[in-house]
Amino acid sequence: MQPQQCPAFFKQYFTFWDQLTPAQQQTLCAATHPLHCDKGENVHGTGGCTGVLVIQSGCLRGYLLSEEGREITLFRAYLGEVILLSAPCAMRQITLEVMIDAEEETDLLVIDGAAYANVTSENIYAENFSLRAAAARLSDAVWVMEQIMFMRFDRRLAAFLLDEMDKSGSQQLKMTHDQIARYMGTAREVVSRMLRYFTAEGIVRQSRGTIQLLDRQKLETISGRY
Amino acid sequence: MQPQQCPAFFKQYFTFWDQLTPAQQQTLCAATHPLHCDKGENVHGTGGCTGVLVIQSGCLRGYLLSEEGREITLFRAYLGEVILLSAPCAMRQITLEVMIDAEEETDLLVIDGAAYANVTSENIYAENFSLRAAAARLSDAVWVMEQIMFMRFDRRLAAFLLDEMDKSGSQQLKMTHDQIARYMGTAREVVSRMLRYFTAEGIVRQSRGTIQLLDRQKLETISGRY
Repeated sequence: MQPQQCPAFFKQYFTFWDQLTPAQQQTLCAATHPLHCDKGENVHGTGGCTGVLVIQSGCLRGYLLSEEGREITLFRAYLGEVILLSAPCAMRQITLEVMIDAEEETDLLVIDGAAYANVTSENIYAENFSLRAAAARLSDAVWVMEQIMFMRFDRRLAAFLLDEMDKSGSQQLKMTHDQIARYMGTAREVVSRMLRYFTAEGIVRQSRGTIQLLDRQKLETISGRY
Repeated sequence: MQPQQCPAFFKQYFTFWDQLTPAQQQTLCAATHPLHCDKGENVHGTGGCTGVLVIQSGCLRGYLLSEEGREITLFRAYLGEVILLSAPCAMRQITLEVMIDAEEETDLLVIDGAAYANVTSENIYAENFSLRAAAARLSDAVWVMEQIMFMRFDRRLAAFLLDEMDKSGSQQLKMTHDQIARYMGTAREVVSRMLRYFTAEGIVRQSRGTIQLLDRQKLETISGRY
């Protein structure tokens, strides 16, 4: 990365920048380079240490891949988001192996994993930043896995949306998350998070208290009915 | 907690003790009390902030509970282990709701969640300790969920152990983890972790290169065959 662009870039995304020594700052600048990914390209696989990714444009998807080729999406990340799970060598606590693909044409800045690990091992502010980001993503991952694989809440919500839309003969549902949660006997937060997941999957679009169906087939598949 | 016992207790379990101010040390001492739990007692439920738990004797089990009452064990913790997931108010990144029960008669020291949160918000070393411990448990939780609910590796390993023991007509299997991994086309680490899980569940006992079957019925249930 050009030395003159580097401080502004790190200050924007990494809250610990001002707590680094000049030598640590130079280490990170020298270890950062741009990477362009085509749509569908695999950015990080299991077993490697690709580095810390900062999204400059486009979208990355993190997922688990079973031996039979089944996938479960753990997160989608957009402009300005920082991905730590692609740098397992910088996070000894974390043994999760996640795959990361570019969902569309994507521009990244990549910080080499070994250089980043050196800085986090020396600087507690950098280490805390990384642990906090990783813990948040892992907590979300457990939540998604719990809801989808254990509670089957995705299935129940899909069935509910299909029922309600069929009743009214419409592709739209005018209900708040709170109302849906009361109908389904769960918490509003659970409904909101799962609708965010459906939105990210391109199944529905949400606006002004309305849920608009975009992909009925996907929703039917999730509901397990058809 | 008695003021004279307090520093020794915290020094033993919390590496950040010497980095606290005297006021922060007093806050933690005043907020720590012993708790005795009977076998089977629920220690922490969802929605609450029970506090940070330090096990003095016995065993705690952390698990997820589905609405239909199905459980998935995420961890077991023993003497000297510190549990942070029972203090969600001290960990804003973590939205995971885990249930924790005493698996046997258990003595705990409990540090009030709000007091602990005050200290971690003020002291970066305390925050670092907590984030690291939470990230490690979350990473393990994702691994267990992935293997059990997604890969069904528990099922495959159970079937393998039953097959091998039936072939030899024995309750014992003399194979290294490495050999099993090669037979099953996976990594040694995956086999070792799942055997640790089976051991914790009381299904097998491991010693000197031998796996001894303790509970055939549980293993058959996991294998999905009977």
